[in-house]
Amino acid sequence: MKKIALIGSTGSIGTQTLDVIRAYPEEFRLEGLAAGSNIELFARQVHEFRPRKASVANKELADRIRPQLPEGIELYYGDQGLIEIAAGTDADTVVTAIVGSAGLPATLAAIEEGKHIALANKETLVTAGHLVTELARRKGVSLLPVDSEHSAIFQCLNGEHHEEVRQITLTASGGSFRDLTREQLRGVTVEDALKHPNWAMGAKITIDSATMVNKGLEVIEAHWLFGLPFEQIGVLLHPESIIHSFVEYRDGSVIAQLGTPDMRVPIQYALTYPHRWPSAAKRLSLAEVGKLNFREMDMDRFPCLRLAFECGKIGGTATSVYNAANEVAVARFLKGDIPFLQIETLIETALAKHEVQAHPDLDTIREADRWARALAETL
Amino acid sequence: MKKIALIGSTGSIGTQTLDVIRAYPEEFRLEGLAAGSNIELFARQVHEFRPRKASVANKELADRIRPQLPEGIELYYGDQGLIEIAAGTDADTVVTAIVGSAGLPATLAAIEEGKHIALANKETLVTAGHLVTELARRKGVSLLPVDSEHSAIFQCLNGEHHEEVRQITLTASGGSFRDLTREQLRGVTVEDALKHPNWAMGAKITIDSATMVNKGLEVIEAHWLFGLPFEQIGVLLHPESIIHSFVEYRDGSVIAQLGTPDMRVPIQYALTYPHRWPSAAKRLSLAEVGKLNFREMDMDRFPCLRLAFECGKIGGTATSVYNAANEVAVARFLKGDIPFLQIETLIETALAKHEVQAHPDLDTIREADRWARALAETL
Repeated sequence: MKKIALIGSTGSIGTQTLDVIRAYPEEFRLEGLAAGSNIELFARQVHEFRPRKASVANKELADRIRPQLPEGIELYYGDQGLIEIAAGTDADTVVTAIVGSAGLPATLAAIEEGKHIALANKETLVTAGHLVTELARRKGVSLLPVDSEHSAIFQCLNGEHHEEVRQITLTASGGSFRDLTREQLRGVTVEDALKHPNWAMGAKITIDSATMVNKGLEVIEAHWLFGLPFEQIGVLLHPESIIHSFVEYRDGSVIAQLGTPDMRVPIQYALTYPHRWPSAAKRLSLAEVGKLNFREMDMDRFPCLRLAFECGKIGGTATSVYNAANEVAVARFLKGDIPFLQIETLIETALAKHEVQAHPDLDTIREADRWARALAETL
Repeated sequence: MKKIALIGSTGSIGTQTLDVIRAYPEEFRLEGLAAGSNIELFARQVHEFRPRKASVANKELADRIRPQLPEGIELYYGDQGLIEIAAGTDADTVVTAIVGSAGLPATLAAIEEGKHIALANKETLVTAGHLVTELARRKGVSLLPVDSEHSAIFQCLNGEHHEEVRQITLTASGGSFRDLTREQLRGVTVEDALKHPNWAMGAKITIDSATMVNKGLEVIEAHWLFGLPFEQIGVLLHPESIIHSFVEYRDGSVIAQLGTPDMRVPIQYALTYPHRWPSAAKRLSLAEVGKLNFREMDMDRFPCLRLAFECGKIGGTATSVYNAANEVAVARFLKGDIPFLQIETLIETALAKHEVQAHPDLDTIREADRWARALAETL
């Protein structure tokens, strides 16, 4: 029996995590569940999975949902509630499917308690990779990637020797604007941006795919997850998203992980590692797919990716600023406040104005985050 | 220091094995070397690598080459010479790069002496898979595949659990006649057949690629190497030969091994396993390749592959008959004695007329081989 806690249960990764758990009722037990403000869905989830502890975004939502919950479930709320779910249950593994910087303290608290982390919260490694990986190492817990790209690389490293890796390459579908020129990008609308070709995802990550910020964040995450310098991390355009990523070894062999686009596969792998359990995912037929295409990644076409490599190499608070400025920029684009191409301008300007702090602690990270958000609102 | 013996040193795999050994003079030591009748090349190899023991095809060749060899090298010949090189040196690993059924007793002798086998001799597993795998298991030696397809699958199994494999798939370039119809195949010449699109190989294996017998033999080998029923082995047309083969796991994940077509990579891996050493092989650039194509394998277009699955499932002496009838048929085609499409007719007829012996010993295998060769000469 594997005991799981899930923070961020009503989002895309959260609901798919519950799909995986639902498929193996004898093997998984959900100990804790945390969500934000989608309390209708959350109430149904609590009824179905009967976690011992549950948490929502704030006291008001907690008060509203409390009468609808089954007897005996401990209900929490807010940042403290999140930490209670992440660190205060019997779970062996915590799935961090929450979006945003609130995921970081909860993840650190879970690691502190010796829980393995099925990692889907980008901020954790992007803003505090040095703190998280060091604590995980010290506590002997595994950071198990949930992202399809990182899961692919993690799988391609199975049974291999780290020092024999020559390069890892993250594939990128190219997002909804893959085939537009810079000129054509000037006029794109929010609606255009939300059509992602391969994966059904939330609005924020769909925009991040179109700007390639998502791939940039993944590059930074990969740097921390796999302990590799940015010079050994590549990105390749692969429109079909069938090869999820790959590892090149120093003998010239390339090991790749492929599959149909279905997040339940990497989520399940993070929960069953080092084993693989049968899944309901559609089987990959390469004959049916017929062709796989690849193109060099163009850093001029996608300057946000270039910026990610740059701030990743600088390190310290630079990656927090990259992430925070992007969050504000995307929110402003989604509100119709700025055009699409200004997302990259905002990030670049914030990075240019930022005084990087090396080896930041949590407070310094939070301060850099706040500073970048405030700035990005005004640009 | 890894000590190696090589049988079949002047062929395509043999010379490339020596390329690998040449690249690491401090790490490899060649203990024994055996070749057939290309004694000029063999003499040069002996001078360069200074094995303690050497062997050629027969007494006459041995007498001719003896004066040219350095002092102190023990020279052998014939089947006994082969066994001396395979089993009578200090080598930890024997590379069986010899073509033909003489490789089998030598390989068994090497396993008996506890030597790991870098396996490039097809007959070993095709005709006596049950004997070889059982002896290897009992002696605790590894059968390390050298074929690019089997090496790929071997690599894709690293760190995984055998019972979690759903299917393995061997890729096939389709050979020199990939795009011809059955009708067009009627008139093809020996010269046409010898143009293989991706790999530079000997005449026999190039014809076997065009008939898909080569893939059929690989399927039978894969059955023994990986202990999988034929129902879990697939073949996929992949003209570029970039994905060398892949493994599908029960969670829906596919792990594939890719690379530029360069046999030195799988040869080296067999010698350095479980480690990977830097190699001079050209790095794979998927962006440069641009596109990978895949097509369902058509068993009507390639009946020799269907026959391989059929005789593989029947087992016993059937696979020896398949192999022997094919060898005669290819030799007759290369001599201009029969048209290309009669290769498959000869194999099919031999299989139809053969009374299969289950669990054959070496003598029974040899007898089935002789019977099939004699028959195939007369058809």
